[in-house]
Amino acid sequence: MDQIDQARIEDEPLLLTPGPVTLSARVKRAMLHDYASGEAVMQETIAWSRRYLLDLCNAQGTHTAIPLVGSGTSGTEAAIGTFVPPNGKLLIHTNGVYGDRLVEIARRIRTPYTSFRTAPYTPPTAEQFAAAIAADPGITHVMVVHCETSTGILNPIESIAAVCRRAGKGLLIDAVASFGAFMLDAKALSFDAVICSANKGLQAPPGLAWIIAKKSALEEAKGNAHSLTLDLWDQNQHMDRTGMFRFTPATHLLLGFAEALREHAGEGGIAGRHDRYRRSWRRLVDGMRQMGFRTLLEDEVASPIVTTFHEPLDPAYSFKALYEGMKRRGFIIFPGRLAAANTFRIACIGVVTEDDIGRALDALEATMREMGVAGMGRI
Amino acid sequence: MDQIDQARIEDEPLLLTPGPVTLSARVKRAMLHDYASGEAVMQETIAWSRRYLLDLCNAQGTHTAIPLVGSGTSGTEAAIGTFVPPNGKLLIHTNGVYGDRLVEIARRIRTPYTSFRTAPYTPPTAEQFAAAIAADPGITHVMVVHCETSTGILNPIESIAAVCRRAGKGLLIDAVASFGAFMLDAKALSFDAVICSANKGLQAPPGLAWIIAKKSALEEAKGNAHSLTLDLWDQNQHMDRTGMFRFTPATHLLLGFAEALREHAGEGGIAGRHDRYRRSWRRLVDGMRQMGFRTLLEDEVASPIVTTFHEPLDPAYSFKALYEGMKRRGFIIFPGRLAAANTFRIACIGVVTEDDIGRALDALEATMREMGVAGMGRI
Repeated sequence: MDQIDQARIEDEPLLLTPGPVTLSARVKRAMLHDYASGEAVMQETIAWSRRYLLDLCNAQGTHTAIPLVGSGTSGTEAAIGTFVPPNGKLLIHTNGVYGDRLVEIARRIRTPYTSFRTAPYTPPTAEQFAAAIAADPGITHVMVVHCETSTGILNPIESIAAVCRRAGKGLLIDAVASFGAFMLDAKALSFDAVICSANKGLQAPPGLAWIIAKKSALEEAKGNAHSLTLDLWDQNQHMDRTGMFRFTPATHLLLGFAEALREHAGEGGIAGRHDRYRRSWRRLVDGMRQMGFRTLLEDEVASPIVTTFHEPLDPAYSFKALYEGMKRRGFIIFPGRLAAANTFRIACIGVVTEDDIGRALDALEATMREMGVAGMGRI
Repeated sequence: MDQIDQARIEDEPLLLTPGPVTLSARVKRAMLHDYASGEAVMQETIAWSRRYLLDLCNAQGTHTAIPLVGSGTSGTEAAIGTFVPPNGKLLIHTNGVYGDRLVEIARRIRTPYTSFRTAPYTPPTAEQFAAAIAADPGITHVMVVHCETSTGILNPIESIAAVCRRAGKGLLIDAVASFGAFMLDAKALSFDAVICSANKGLQAPPGLAWIIAKKSALEEAKGNAHSLTLDLWDQNQHMDRTGMFRFTPATHLLLGFAEALREHAGEGGIAGRHDRYRRSWRRLVDGMRQMGFRTLLEDEVASPIVTTFHEPLDPAYSFKALYEGMKRRGFIIFPGRLAAANTFRIACIGVVTEDDIGRALDALEATMREMGVAGMGRI
């Protein structure tokens, strides 16, 4: 990792959360320019970003990269609304909060769907997907969250994709938390759509969603969408034709995004970024275990994106005091989510190094001591 | 205007376009911070911004301010989808490209609607609205664009609102281009919703839309929306309850937005901003007429937001050469739109002063001379 290139502004707490993540100073400074949406510099920025994203997942020729102004969730809503036709049916897998959110979207936008839930702390199997698909011949598409950040679990996308391919079902992958740090090969996985956030693994400012969409699937999706602004077919044809967004884009975010992609390339692309996250995660998990903490997940099924830890049983412990003690020491952490009560989460994404994690471990130990949480062995 | 506070970064062309607009350096620099969405500083930033917007249109108590990550168009889609129930009917007025876009949204999201068109270069009358409402008793809501930037015309919102109030119809105002520079009094106009862009008259980075919504109308709108991410009822209840967005917000844009509101207050609020735009517009129109240019609209019906000029008839003229000559001299301008062929547009919004307009007039004269456009009297 290029320490100078990814230098951050040091006067604020480091975000050890699964988004928004801490960005480098150079990415934020790239936003300090005003351009009209039709200017050559904006068109080149957008065109280059689209190409870089396609290269990143071996998607040139077969797929197209479509940006939207909005949250990652708006990207998943756009993909569901655009790809699943009124006479189709979406099978949604869930093993956590973000899978549940996909179900909520399908329900709200009246997409025909069915869903199935698997255990939250172990990955689903190919057999479970095959059985769920076989149970309902009306199913045309399958949707799955790649990294479920409510627990940190990584769902086995290769074997799921193989099942979908054999069954001839379109595959939509919610890669909002993982894209940029994991290879999602468009040719090998043959997905209809991967939904990415600009933030998280791509380390750009939040507020843009990107969808890597299979061209042949998109061509069949004309007129499906429930929304004008979230219609990926319409956005894509307009961008291919004019090089521009249909509606006023977030120009500053797009400039920051392109700079974040240059930074991503400079770090060695997916491999380089993945390695850094994994080194940070290894240091985190080892250090926490040395203090006596237990992870919610086994290492084999965990992602390096975010890790969930059980809270100490000691009555002197409170998450509020932990949050505040960590913040005072320069680190922001998140509580656990619904499925995992009495836990807290520490993420390793954004401009975070192994050394930062080392300092965060020291801060956590000091905070626990301050709280009066006795011997970590009791955790 | 506080020249120091609104200083801009001088190394790039000034945008004389109706969005994105040129921002001050202080607004862009406010984006140079990374915060988690739940941190106190973000919650306070959002709460303060909501209050400021309500104060700006005399809406405290009766209305609520709802942010969305997205374009102004996504804000108008959200408002149509949220406020017009399945058994309601929306009457859409159009006299330009942005009115037509509202029709397109209603058609695409399958909102029951009817529309009526009035002449593009003269404002509609209260009588025309009263007649359109009377013609269809099924109409429950009326929607109108305040400033139609495809021509620059300002639609007479007070008399339109009076008609809606008398007829008992909900009023939705697309104020994307005008908000921040015109008073839209929530108590006097009694609107159900005003849709604003963060950019344009509020001079914040594009990528956020805000909706000022009447609480009593919003309460009745639960469950109407065609979308999860564009559901204003849901977004509002979540923000009121938690102080946070439902989905990862564009934290950097929100920081820039609050700084832009502080700048707005420092300029004297709506009155101060309106006066500056109007002075720039007066200088522009007078200067262009001295050169022999003709405006598309009479001054009485024009807005100071953006002005449309007829192109010279001289065959030596081309918009491309004008655009490029102006850009080389530090100014970006836009061509006319559909309804107004053979025109170009110059806007006076963003961090633009009378002096800037003076320099732009000099640049335009020099560019015309360079092109070999003979005597401006021929225009």
